Amino acid sequence: MENCIFCKIVQGEVPSNKVFENEHVVAFHDISPQAKIHILIIPKKHIPTMNDLETEDAFLLGEIHLAAGQIAKEFGIHESGYRLINNCNQDAGQVVFHIHYHLLGGEKLGALNG
Amino acid sequence: MENCIFCKIVQGEVPSNKVFENEHVVAFHDISPQAKIHILIIPKKHIPTMNDLETEDAFLLGEIHLAAGQIAKEFGIHESGYRLINNCNQDAGQVVFHIHYHLLGGEKLGALNG
Repeated sequence: MENCIFCKIVQGEVPSNKVFENEHVVAFHDISPQAKIHILIIPKKHIPTMNDLETEDAFLLGEIHLAAGQIAKEFGIHESGYRLINNCNQDAGQVVFHIHYHLLGGEKLGALNG
Repeated sequence: MENCIFCKIVQGEVPSNKVFENEHVVAFHDISPQAKIHILIIPKKHIPTMNDLETEDAFLLGEIHLAAGQIAKEFGIHESGYRLINNCNQDAGQVVFHIHYHLLGGEKLGALNG
């Protein structure tokens, strides 16, 4: 998808601090961390919002969550805990319109709706 | 799973205000809402935390997210927006150890880590 910053990260056209990559998913550090550990996990396929998820792409959510578990383990926060967040559209504060999961951890996290 | 409140909700042994149900997923209103709309989406299968997600169950995350999109549409918040949150273990504030996704919406949401 032209002009999508996350597609450009997937394609290596924009640099990122990657922590995970497989066939379907890429994960990298958020450039404006909101917790000690703040990683973004995205599907390589361009899907603008969770509303656009089609049945045939639903397995990508499974892939994202399997990746989240592995990343949490690598960062040593799988036992202490972590939060996974997807923001869809304006009320939730979605800024980049390519589905992304925030993985937050490394500290005691606050409210879900702060 | 004996003594799991969410398994009891799935089995109808504990009442809930259900908003969605299919073969794999149940959704119901959170009893302590943290936004105007606050729904919990759970797999019928007992999986304690996201760390316990096995490859063969990963499709359930797809099911949860397809359900989330449908529920958001039914509640009229798919355009305005909504947030999906999973808390894993103590740092994130997980209380019930049966995977559940919070769907928050119906208002402008605040910080991810409030």
